[in-house]
Parts: sequence; structure tokens; C-alpha cells
Amino acid sequence: MQIAIVLFDRFTALDAVGPYETLQRLPGAEIVFVSHQRGEVRTENGFLGMTADKSFDEVQSPDVVIVPGGVGALDYLEDEALLNWLRKVHSSSRFTTSVCSGALILAAAGLLPGMEATTYWAFLDKLTALGAVPTEARLVEHLDQRIVTAAGVSAGIDMALRLAEILTDRKTAEAMQLIMEYDPQPPFDAGSVAKAGPEVVAIAQEIFKTKG
Amino acid sequence: MQIAIVLFDRFTALDAVGPYETLQRLPGAEIVFVSHQRGEVRTENGFLGMTADKSFDEVQSPDVVIVPGGVGALDYLEDEALLNWLRKVHSSSRFTTSVCSGALILAAAGLLPGMEATTYWAFLDKLTALGAVPTEARLVEHLDQRIVTAAGVSAGIDMALRLAEILTDRKTAEAMQLIMEYDPQPPFDAGSVAKAGPEVVAIAQEIFKTKG
Repeated sequence: MQIAIVLFDRFTALDAVGPYETLQRLPGAEIVFVSHQRGEVRTENGFLGMTADKSFDEVQSPDVVIVPGGVGALDYLEDEALLNWLRKVHSSSRFTTSVCSGALILAAAGLLPGMEATTYWAFLDKLTALGAVPTEARLVEHLDQRIVTAAGVSAGIDMALRLAEILTDRKTAEAMQLIMEYDPQPPFDAGSVAKAGPEVVAIAQEIFKTKG
Repeated sequence: MQIAIVLFDRFTALDAVGPYETLQRLPGAEIVFVSHQRGEVRTENGFLGMTADKSFDEVQSPDVVIVPGGVGALDYLEDEALLNWLRKVHSSSRFTTSVCSGALILAAAGLLPGMEATTYWAFLDKLTALGAVPTEARLVEHLDQRIVTAAGVSAGIDMALRLAEILTDRKTAEAMQLIMEYDPQPPFDAGSVAKAGPEVVAIAQEIFKTKG
């Protein structure tokens, strides 16, 4: 079972690494990081380089496709190399998925026509112009169309646990959760706009504006 | 504020990327990935390469040090290049921290003498031989000794949110949580040994034995 995780310039690392970590130990799973060409790809701040081991040309029929987000995603909404690859691999994938603003890329590829989808909280309105129907949810599953979208950044972990269950079985997926010791105990409860409140939202927006 | 995240062969990616993602947007934060030498370092399964931008020699006085875990950690418990670097940087760091089996490395460096510490659930007993006192907790803080240890893998996100609060203030830390949309909604509740139950623990142990 090949799981392809897309990298592009100025992606958000946790969008990619959350699902990678959740799925990497599934029996038979091979994870491949893929981009326009082989080599290092940098996150939005430049602090972290991750290696794409394959180019799009070299990954022809992955079983699962995961498109992360990040401010860089906005630069790829007309990138035909990436969009055409997504259209092609989606024709045979078991699941084509996104985390965070990766949903904008799926939508730009025409994979979310008139479909409910979720994305990063600050980008929900951008989905409309790309033909999808923005939905405030942690996860939106269209199992019949083999499309799953997750909300921002850390939501990729929750999505991947659900994918693990579908791809194997509930007990195996639970074992993945245990192996990651994913028993969340955040010290605060500010993980959504509603919970964070206006003051924290304003701080986040200001930081996001400068740092992406 | 320089935050140094250690990489070593066969580390666990989320141990490093969880805190990276949580802390990277803190005002004034510079994250640097550091290892024995500059260059690519691979995770335990080889699926993912991440770049160390600096060698230990090039990072002399980071404000925060984060040591991830992974099965590879067991190979570095007598690695004097790493252990000596940790001893040196801890003398001036604001916090020296670990995620998962990274605690074994801190203990091997002599930084946890007789101190309570947490680590990956499957490795708790290994802390004793290294002079620490294993504690089943998501997070163990010794703020006076400037040491914080986190449990396995995903616990690094919770730890980093707490560090963000100490390093800045509560509202800024909450903004980091919102930016990561860290509003966990795992589809199962199997993130600890107690919650997972014996059948899932056995599956996890079997997978962990073969895949690390």
C-alpha cells in the first residue's frame, strides 16, 4: 500500500508529518514524499527542509494521496504539473485527501465540485470560489467519491486515524493511536475560533499575517 | 530566541515536528535543526528525510533544546558527541526538554539525576537504569532545573504549548494552539495503555517490535 504525501514550497510541516506518523506503521504501508522534483522542500518559514524522494512522474498509482497545506498552497492553485498529477492519481487512488489549505489545491484540481469540504479556519471562504462548499468540521468524508478533507494542521492526525481504520480495521487503527501516544492533553482549550475567543483570534490573525 | 531541535538517525518525526510546529511562530523564535553534522537525517523507517542545518559545533547557546525520541535513541545513550553537547548547552539554556524516548538521552547525559521524568510508555522502565525516576505522566516539569520531559510522540505538542506559555504568555500560547487548529477529535480513545486495553496494547507491541 503506497501512501504519497505531496510536498511543495512553503508547506506546513505538521500537515504532512501528522498523517505520515499515523500511517507509517500500518502493515504493508510504504510512505513516499513526492514533489515536482526530487530533493529538499522547505516549510513556510524556511526553518525545516524535508526530502521529496520521488518526483510526480515517478509516482503513478498511489493507494492514498495526502495533500498538506501551508501558505505556499496559495501559489499552486494554477500549477498544472501538480493539478494534473492529482487528477491522474485520483482516478485510481483509494483515497485522495487534504489537510488544512491542501483542500484548496484539491478544489483547484476540480476534485471537489459542489462537494462539502473543510480546510483551515482562516481559508474557509476561499473554497467557494474553487467550486467546493466550505464546511466548518474537523473532517469531511466522501467515501463514495474517495475524498476526505481535514481542517487545519493538527487535524491531519485525526483524519489519518480514521483512514487507518478504513484501510485496515478498528483495532489496528487504535494501535496506531497508542503507538503515537495520542492521548491529547493540551494545557488550554483554544483550538478553534469559537473556543479561542476574539482576543486570541486577533493575536493569531496578526501572527499569521506576518509569518504565514 | 533560538530553539534547537536535535536530529539523529532513526528518530521519530512527529516528536520533532510537533514542538517545531507549535513554537515556530512564537514572536522572535528561530528554530534550528541540529545534528552531529549538517545534512539529511532519516526517520526510523527511512521514509522521511529531514535536514539538519547546523552541526552541534555551530549551535553553542540555544535558549531551548528539544530532544526527540525514536528507536534510534537507544543507539545514542553512549554517544559522547551528543551527550557532551547536551551537557554544555543545558548550562545556559532556558529549557532543556525531551519528547518520547528522548528522555533516555537526557538521562544518559546525566541531566535527570534522581529526577522524576516521563518517556514513551514502552520505555518507562529504561529510565531507572539511567538514574531518573520514571513517572507515568503526559508532562513532567522541573522548572527550577529548567528540564521538561514529555511522554510519547504526540505529547510533544502539549509540551510545546506549555513552553510557549512560559516563554511568552498565555494568550500568545493560545494563539499558537489556534493557528495549529489543535482541537483534538481523535475517532477513538486508545491513546494510553489504560485506555487502549490489552488487545490493542498487544497489537501495538507486535508492530512496534518489527517497525520500531
